[in-house]
Amino acid sequence: MGSGALSLRSPSGPPASSSNRGPNQATPKKNGVKNGGGGGQMRLRDDECFGADMDEGLDTDFDFEANLALFDKAAVFSQIDGTDYNGVRSRGTPGGERGTPTRYRHDENILEVKPVVYRQITVPQHGGKEYCTDSGLVVPSVSYELHKCLLASAERHGLSLERRLEMTGVCASQMALTLLGGPNRLTPKNNHQRPTVALLCGPHVQGAQGISCGRHLANHEVEVILFLPNFVKMQESITNELSLYSKTSGKQVASIKDLPVSPVDLVINCLDCHENGFLRDKAWYLAAADWANQNRAPVLSIDPPVSGQKQAVEAKWTLSLGLPLPIDGGEARVYLCDIGVPKQVFQEVGINYHSPFGCKFVIPLHSA
Amino acid sequence: MGSGALSLRSPSGPPASSSNRGPNQATPKKNGVKNGGGGGQMRLRDDECFGADMDEGLDTDFDFEANLALFDKAAVFSQIDGTDYNGVRSRGTPGGERGTPTRYRHDENILEVKPVVYRQITVPQHGGKEYCTDSGLVVPSVSYELHKCLLASAERHGLSLERRLEMTGVCASQMALTLLGGPNRLTPKNNHQRPTVALLCGPHVQGAQGISCGRHLANHEVEVILFLPNFVKMQESITNELSLYSKTSGKQVASIKDLPVSPVDLVINCLDCHENGFLRDKAWYLAAADWANQNRAPVLSIDPPVSGQKQAVEAKWTLSLGLPLPIDGGEARVYLCDIGVPKQVFQEVGINYHSPFGCKFVIPLHSA
Repeated sequence: MGSGALSLRSPSGPPASSSNRGPNQATPKKNGVKNGGGGGQMRLRDDECFGADMDEGLDTDFDFEANLALFDKAAVFSQIDGTDYNGVRSRGTPGGERGTPTRYRHDENILEVKPVVYRQITVPQHGGKEYCTDSGLVVPSVSYELHKCLLASAERHGLSLERRLEMTGVCASQMALTLLGGPNRLTPKNNHQRPTVALLCGPHVQGAQGISCGRHLANHEVEVILFLPNFVKMQESITNELSLYSKTSGKQVASIKDLPVSPVDLVINCLDCHENGFLRDKAWYLAAADWANQNRAPVLSIDPPVSGQKQAVEAKWTLSLGLPLPIDGGEARVYLCDIGVPKQVFQEVGINYHSPFGCKFVIPLHSA
Repeated sequence: MGSGALSLRSPSGPPASSSNRGPNQATPKKNGVKNGGGGGQMRLRDDECFGADMDEGLDTDFDFEANLALFDKAAVFSQIDGTDYNGVRSRGTPGGERGTPTRYRHDENILEVKPVVYRQITVPQHGGKEYCTDSGLVVPSVSYELHKCLLASAERHGLSLERRLEMTGVCASQMALTLLGGPNRLTPKNNHQRPTVALLCGPHVQGAQGISCGRHLANHEVEVILFLPNFVKMQESITNELSLYSKTSGKQVASIKDLPVSPVDLVINCLDCHENGFLRDKAWYLAAADWANQNRAPVLSIDPPVSGQKQAVEAKWTLSLGLPLPIDGGEARVYLCDIGVPKQVFQEVGINYHSPFGCKFVIPLHSA
């Protein structure tokens, strides 16, 4: 400090001692410092130093607001930014109107950003329900007829039922593995307590999808108990899946009596089919649904149908394929599975499609 | 402080001033306070207070070790634990030898734990290399002949090439999507900068696997540029995949000239095939490998072959299918993809198999 031995500090500026002030530092326009201590001797020294009476300045409170108003913030910031400060930032070619290079702030983007379109999928007829994904994309539901038309068109273009079954099985089993506890449950150290899944399938494509899922689960060391009603003649898709399944799990199909009394880890429900509602009245259907409702395990329904009636087995999660149907899943959480239908196939049935899946193959949907 | 206006503070205890000490506060048994300051007047006051000569206590240091040895730690802990403290913990039936119930600690398990077997997969002949997974499971490599035999057996049992192509495509694309940045890169807000993948395929099953992967990538809004040499007659698996691919991406196959000069985000290399080594001398192969080496993008090789020669395109990652081959991938990181081969099929070719995949379908392998 200077010889005055009195520390004068402006409220927000650098020390006011003239010996410390560099040539470029701004001088406070108004000396508004309250002199805190100071007796008679001090007053004398001040007089010596500043050569004027300081009483006035010392007795009035410092007007911070008025002082702040004197500060031309915009001018200083424009100097810092190197831009004109009329509110409009010149953008684009460097060395623009004024010959000064345009500078971008750290949170500005040099690329033009298009507004995000959240309604990327449009359907010819409103299916009754709309969902949205975690990232806000709108996914409309489609009627069962349109969905059927979509799958038929995909098959004509080479996305065979076999391919679809394989992809559905892989993705549904990935979801089921996550529901079972994922990497926490399925570690080598946990081999003595493998998770158990009861898989209830009907004699239709939905059942075949379930068996495909069960095969991939069994392949990942999950204990799968498959229930399938015993018919003499089955669809080819089912017999193929069944043959592969039994070679993977090494187990036969279970009858109702074989289903465990104690709770399993997860029930996968593929009893329902989209068209043959009369199956619901069959003895095997009723027995299996009854068992599922009595077992306290949570239920995952794969590809559940639209139906006016209440679901026979209440699901905790439902997994729809490709695009959701307007199902009334009650309290169930809705998930959507990518089945790889080509974009051109969507277009053929009048759907304008952009994938809502991001980098995933199974995503949760929320009621919009 | 008291009237003495002198602060006496024991090293770790409460203030020693007698006026501040409550009735319940313990008196130090041995006054081990070193009198830091204090003159004659102080000594006098101490004498008045404690009534004895304090010099001895003040001059010897407190023996912490000897004092600690007096504390019977084991006896106190056995009281806390409720167990006998001869080192052996009685376990088993509650109310055992001594009639005291056995208690388990929070880190003890009531279930008998089997030792973890890390070598779950055994092969008839040693393939040359061994890998291990993140969780320590040993995955041996198999010779190309055994691998071929495995796939042929799987096809006979119903795991058709079509199914395998679909599953490989899904799983490889999941890996590629992760390599491209996963959910950070593929969000609706990032639509204006979709990742670009160059896919280099040869006219064989490995190429078809690549096209299947490319189709699923295109279906997830990745910009895919597919290179495939132009032949009049192709394998059926390739033409099928190609047809589905073009309906998904809406783009034609690119020639060497169409490949971009600027770096892409990822190159997927499916140029090589396991058997026809002579393809490596073809003009299209050399041109494509040359392009890949000049483009600075990282390379993922799907199903690379075993070969004595150096890889034409150096990969950053390699993805093997089912079981690894003893490839010499240089610096490449090895990944293994589940292709859903049933356990019984493994057994048929003499492999004792337990899935090393846990809940995943693609896992990293480390050289054991």
